[in-house]
Amino acid sequence: MLTLASDFGTPYPAAMRGVIHRRSDATVTDVAHDFSRQDPRAAAFWLRFVLPEFPPAVHCVVVDPGVGTDRAALVVRAGDHALVGPDNGVLLPPARALAEETGTAPSALELFEIAVADPASATFHGRDVFAPTAADAHEVGVDALETLDALSRTDEFVDCRFPEPTLTHADGTDGANGRVETATGEVLVVDDFGNAITNIPGSVLDGRLGERVRVEGPTQTTTAPAKRTFAAVEPGEPLVTVGSHGSVECDVNQGRGDERFGLAVGDEVVVRWER
Amino acid sequence: MLTLASDFGTPYPAAMRGVIHRRSDATVTDVAHDFSRQDPRAAAFWLRFVLPEFPPAVHCVVVDPGVGTDRAALVVRAGDHALVGPDNGVLLPPARALAEETGTAPSALELFEIAVADPASATFHGRDVFAPTAADAHEVGVDALETLDALSRTDEFVDCRFPEPTLTHADGTDGANGRVETATGEVLVVDDFGNAITNIPGSVLDGRLGERVRVEGPTQTTTAPAKRTFAAVEPGEPLVTVGSHGSVECDVNQGRGDERFGLAVGDEVVVRWER
Amino acid sequence: MLTLASDFGTPYPAAMRGVIHRRSDATVTDVAHDFSRQDPRAAAFWLRFVLPEFPPAVHCVVVDPGVGTDRAALVVRAGDHALVGPDNGVLLPPARALAEETGTAPSALELFEIAVADPASATFHGRDVFAPTAADAHEVGVDALETLDALSRTDEFVDCRFPEPTLTHADGTDGANGRVETATGEVLVVDDFGNAITNIPGSVLDGRLGERVRVEGPTQTTTAPAKRTFAAVEPGEPLVTVGSHGSVECDVNQGRGDERFGLAVGDEVVVRWER
Repeated sequence: MLTLASDFGTPYPAAMRGVIHRRSDATVTDVAHDFSRQDPRAAAFWLRFVLPEFPPAVHCVVVDPGVGTDRAALVVRAGDHALVGPDNGVLLPPARALAEETGTAPSALELFEIAVADPASATFHGRDVFAPTAADAHEVGVDALETLDALSRTDEFVDCRFPEPTLTHADGTDGANGRVETATGEVLVVDDFGNAITNIPGSVLDGRLGERVRVEGPTQTTTAPAKRTFAAVEPGEPLVTVGSHGSVECDVNQGRGDERFGLAVGDEVVVRWER
Repeated sequence: MLTLASDFGTPYPAAMRGVIHRRSDATVTDVAHDFSRQDPRAAAFWLRFVLPEFPPAVHCVVVDPGVGTDRAALVVRAGDHALVGPDNGVLLPPARALAEETGTAPSALELFEIAVADPASATFHGRDVFAPTAADAHEVGVDALETLDALSRTDEFVDCRFPEPTLTHADGTDGANGRVETATGEVLVVDDFGNAITNIPGSVLDGRLGERVRVEGPTQTTTAPAKRTFAAVEPGEPLVTVGSHGSVECDVNQGRGDERFGLAVGDEVVVRWER
Repeated sequence: MLTLASDFGTPYPAAMRGVIHRRSDATVTDVAHDFSRQDPRAAAFWLRFVLPEFPPAVHCVVVDPGVGTDRAALVVRAGDHALVGPDNGVLLPPARALAEETGTAPSALELFEIAVADPASATFHGRDVFAPTAADAHEVGVDALETLDALSRTDEFVDCRFPEPTLTHADGTDGANGRVETATGEVLVVDDFGNAITNIPGSVLDGRLGERVRVEGPTQTTTAPAKRTFAAVEPGEPLVTVGSHGSVECDVNQGRGDERFGLAVGDEVVVRWER
């Protein structure tokens, strides 16, 4: 199995599919091709969530604002999965999630640099570098990446870490004593529904569903109940909940949370319990 | 074969695909993931039209405004097809169409309730309930749904019926004597082209192509010719025609019918022949 | 292998997939279903670029503003590929590209007219004519199209040629002496990124990367550097470059070139080197 993900829209990914089908009999599945343009972190957020659902596969990921620079091209082996894409961090969070899923230590990730032949197209490494490498990796098998001439081991890579939220507890410290009073985080992505998804762990809502919280964004403060499901509030009403990805998100039942809470990707957001 | 349909956009359906590929070798095909948000009736309209084109398959359908409530989760057997999804009516119109297609009486539909293990994710039953059930149903086969422990027969379900149009005939009655003078219906969906598709049967245009009709919507009345094809009017000109789904629709050649006729989903619409 | 391309959006292509899966075990791949509405030339531009990446396949292409008129329906054999679609020119540019890719002379394209049974649906030839023909062509094989009863050889077809740009050289002629001073072309398509792609061959930038050019559109003149890659200019800055399809395009790094240069599909555009 081979998956494809990019910010290419259409029809560029079809050219990648053609290249892959020429080289491999792999079943090819699209993850998404409408990731936020040239935002490796947003793509990494989603891929960390989606890719571990797949059986062992090669995942070709092209969100690549640095195409045409001297950024490297990588293959990462994570357990019985491999990821192929640019060296800008987009591969690392899903690679760690896949390692965890398959019982491999995140420190056991193995990285390979792809030798990029010249002249490769300046603007379509997806077709000319990543798709053929992914197909070849699929053909030799994830266990035998070493046998591909184009790959050489490397320990250097650009990482991507999501910002850590700051949790302040009832005792006035950021330790774990007492209940969380405020959580300060960041909007990492806004999904197709308009849900504003933060880096604040869903666990801060444990045992507090039904309480009301204040959500302080850059331009406005919005109050909303913490709820387990959308259907717990009326259509059009805001809520704060935990998405299936495990993070706190600011939503509106049958509406757009980003608009209601005045939040966009990258905004700092403070969640504060009302007394 | 296993099909997927939802209002999830991306990349959530890819998580469902991953789950399915872990459990099944089924060929997986996407029907659409951009159905109108949380509108089971609109999805049912399209699925009734599309699914009967498929060979025997399991169809996983997730348009689910009630996720997180106590709504049930269902599998419906319709001839040699099965449908899997929430109990909100979205499965029933396509199930009846599949039954009809395969020579099964609509009354012979068989329903099974899915036992939902706790704790399932509050917000992603697509991944945690419907996708695995669809994969399992595919693996055991539509004829052997009874062998799945998670399924138990039920006779209770939420239905979805499309509103019936009112046809008034030349003799002043709503009987079938004389030609239809007025047809009063509702806009059920607007497709990607902007075609405003009603519940008025295409048969009301039989023998009357070329005549002009008045289309009375909530805010405006528009006159247009009844035509067999878009190309029968100039680009930019309105027409009333019968779509491939068999219903009357209000269109513009190379333009948007919803805007020209001032129609949106749910609007009452009266089609009246000009004298 | 069988590919599908159209301007249908969703969910209409799923009906075509169902029809194909009933008749064939082909692996089916979507190229794109969001081509510009009823613009065969734009679709032909992209298909010429994408389809030659595929291994031998049947390509079903439905961008069909003339559906319901007496336009013919065609199958074109191009080397070991076949294309199926309406006779409006959309098949010809990719057919020539496939012929070239497979070492077949473009003059060796073979055309077949599809006998369209009556009554076919007036508005969905994709499902009723092109999908079944594509499936049948896949089943008998591209070499045996003659054995399909519905096909008969033809030499008549509507062609599609992209407009030729005019290049003026330093010696004041349009010959090949001296460097290109001005290139007058047309915006053929705007891609999902907002890149305005012209019919001016990328070769006019050979040896001149880094120089600045003036781009004269219908409403404004914009100056920008000619660069090999997006990353060579700052985010938000315009550039002129050569896309992976080999044509000159007007872009903005991490922005929309069509807006910055004031260009839309069909606009005449003059690229002039600054002295």
